[in-house]
Amino acid sequence: MSDSDQAFMARALELARKGLYSTHPNPRVGCVIVRDGNVVGEGWHAKAGEPHAEVHALRQAGDKARGATAYVTLEPCSHHGRTPPCADALVAAGVARVVAAMQDPNPQVAGRGLLRLMNAGISVQSGVLEAEARALNAGFVKRMEHGLPLVRVKLAMSLDGRTAMASGESQWITGPAARAAVQRLRARSSVVLSGADTVLADAARLTVRPDELGLGAELTALAQGRPPLRVLIDGRLRVPLSAPFFQAGPALVATCAAATSRNRYVDDGHELLAMPGSNGHVDLRKLLLELAGRGANEVLVEAGPKLAGAFARLGLVDEYQLFVAPKFLGSSARPLLDLPLARMAEAKPLKIVDMRAVGDDWRIIAVPDSTA
Amino acid sequence: MSDSDQAFMARALELARKGLYSTHPNPRVGCVIVRDGNVVGEGWHAKAGEPHAEVHALRQAGDKARGATAYVTLEPCSHHGRTPPCADALVAAGVARVVAAMQDPNPQVAGRGLLRLMNAGISVQSGVLEAEARALNAGFVKRMEHGLPLVRVKLAMSLDGRTAMASGESQWITGPAARAAVQRLRARSSVVLSGADTVLADAARLTVRPDELGLGAELTALAQGRPPLRVLIDGRLRVPLSAPFFQAGPALVATCAAATSRNRYVDDGHELLAMPGSNGHVDLRKLLLELAGRGANEVLVEAGPKLAGAFARLGLVDEYQLFVAPKFLGSSARPLLDLPLARMAEAKPLKIVDMRAVGDDWRIIAVPDSTA
Repeated sequence: MSDSDQAFMARALELARKGLYSTHPNPRVGCVIVRDGNVVGEGWHAKAGEPHAEVHALRQAGDKARGATAYVTLEPCSHHGRTPPCADALVAAGVARVVAAMQDPNPQVAGRGLLRLMNAGISVQSGVLEAEARALNAGFVKRMEHGLPLVRVKLAMSLDGRTAMASGESQWITGPAARAAVQRLRARSSVVLSGADTVLADAARLTVRPDELGLGAELTALAQGRPPLRVLIDGRLRVPLSAPFFQAGPALVATCAAATSRNRYVDDGHELLAMPGSNGHVDLRKLLLELAGRGANEVLVEAGPKLAGAFARLGLVDEYQLFVAPKFLGSSARPLLDLPLARMAEAKPLKIVDMRAVGDDWRIIAVPDSTA
Repeated sequence: MSDSDQAFMARALELARKGLYSTHPNPRVGCVIVRDGNVVGEGWHAKAGEPHAEVHALRQAGDKARGATAYVTLEPCSHHGRTPPCADALVAAGVARVVAAMQDPNPQVAGRGLLRLMNAGISVQSGVLEAEARALNAGFVKRMEHGLPLVRVKLAMSLDGRTAMASGESQWITGPAARAAVQRLRARSSVVLSGADTVLADAARLTVRPDELGLGAELTALAQGRPPLRVLIDGRLRVPLSAPFFQAGPALVATCAAATSRNRYVDDGHELLAMPGSNGHVDLRKLLLELAGRGANEVLVEAGPKLAGAFARLGLVDEYQLFVAPKFLGSSARPLLDLPLARMAEAKPLKIVDMRAVGDDWRIIAVPDSTA
């Protein structure tokens, strides 16, 4: 792989990132068409139902696509979905070479798009900046490979690992920059998920507030046009329909209570999903499977220590984003996670992948460490 | 102030840092002598009783000091201590200009050294890289200005803010790189202070182990030659003289128990310090005053949540160094600090000044935020 291949793919990834907030349930994809070392076309996928990245780039390139190299962050599709196959479009445009960052993560179809191109006499390569491409679509990749969404747990804590005072007092632990970062986490997610405790205690709405995203006009508009599905886990249906959460727009409620009340929710524009469970607790793994079935790539869990702890105990968390406020809340305050462990050997090993300042607060990104 | 003044002072600070582990109770000081833009002499203070930085630098410069500029990280002394005044030596050498990073922090003597130089017809300037110079000797500065040492609390915790399992199981929360960093914290301190709980539960010795410092031969030898004073707070004299802590070398025990047992400690080579206290708890502020009286600039507190929490509650902590292991110990595990607070308004505001990876662990440095 040449330096220039990497440079053009880096540009394609930059374009792909513009779809961060809007491509659900599709992956974020970018494409750059290069002829004689010059970029002649660029494109990125903005939202489902609209043209794929390759189509935008080919349109911009026009006749210059003939004999050119196309850099795509994901293997071009070879099937008829809501749009015609991009592999066919690349063939028709007379492209001479296609470089993909990664193959289609769906094992059932991986390689078919590249094969289609090869069979048409196009030179094909895959694996340029693959790690970056997989990271950009980690949720989509996980759903394709495992039938489950990526689960990201966001927690706000003090430096001594506490989320609220024993009384429950907790508002404004972190500052405005951290809150904007959380808004962007919500906006990029397919699903924002919470529990009855949080929604009741904090009167949480879990919406995306466009003016708090801190993004430019184009991305803000895209984020606004594709809000995440808000999911409430309410095993015993304790949250009333008058709660701010329900007043803020349509939501999905997962419950294991009797489905007799379904109509009340539907009448108010919401959906009630009856799930198996025990002791009034929804089966979280089954819920995630259901959400993946609906196309959810990234699920953001914004919940209290009980629900977040339950996801952790079940090994369902892919990534923790801890927003750390520079203060001590003290030893009577509430724990980060309800996670009772007796012996050190039971401790959950993590890998800290990033730590950085966000305003006066700090953000730590940690992932479960399967090698430890 | 010119760019070259800053560059030469930066070099003087670099030299001063060589004394990090050995100058107690003196400050770390470096000196550079420059003539016609060329460095003609360099020196730094290695340990108490040996020549000051200026003397080393003047010796190296020899005749070239005449008409030169001397950059010193601290105002040259004007009093007769264990060595003759450096201000006199600079005058005698015929230096034309003296640039100091900061004045002597002792308000009783600040400016006298510079005045002595000025009266001898030398051009004098102060305040170049002053913040860096004050930071290097923050403990010395605090002792001079307030009669108290700088108190640095070291804690090792999991990402969810826990220090040990409920059972007390706690060994090896953090990895070897973090332990080496703690060794260097001990080595730079005048005093390493702990409590009876920690010394009993962990069989802690709190010594500096030269082979674990991760320093070069010169600094290791200097650190080894000037070990910190190990201080045990043992209000009720619970730690037996057979404990590893006492076997590891002479120590100071602060207690509020009856002084009748003093001789037992002295016979074993230790010192017993009777302090005022209440309920078997030593008055920590008075102990710090006593340690400052003995020349302690930096006190490292390596203790459990009770004693560390007591320092925090009393507002005696200048700096927290939190070594964070990438794991969750869970909600039954022991808290970072015994610090029971009921309301958010009581939360202790901090400022996080540094966060960085140390091996697989991370280190967070936080200081109390008086502006919050």
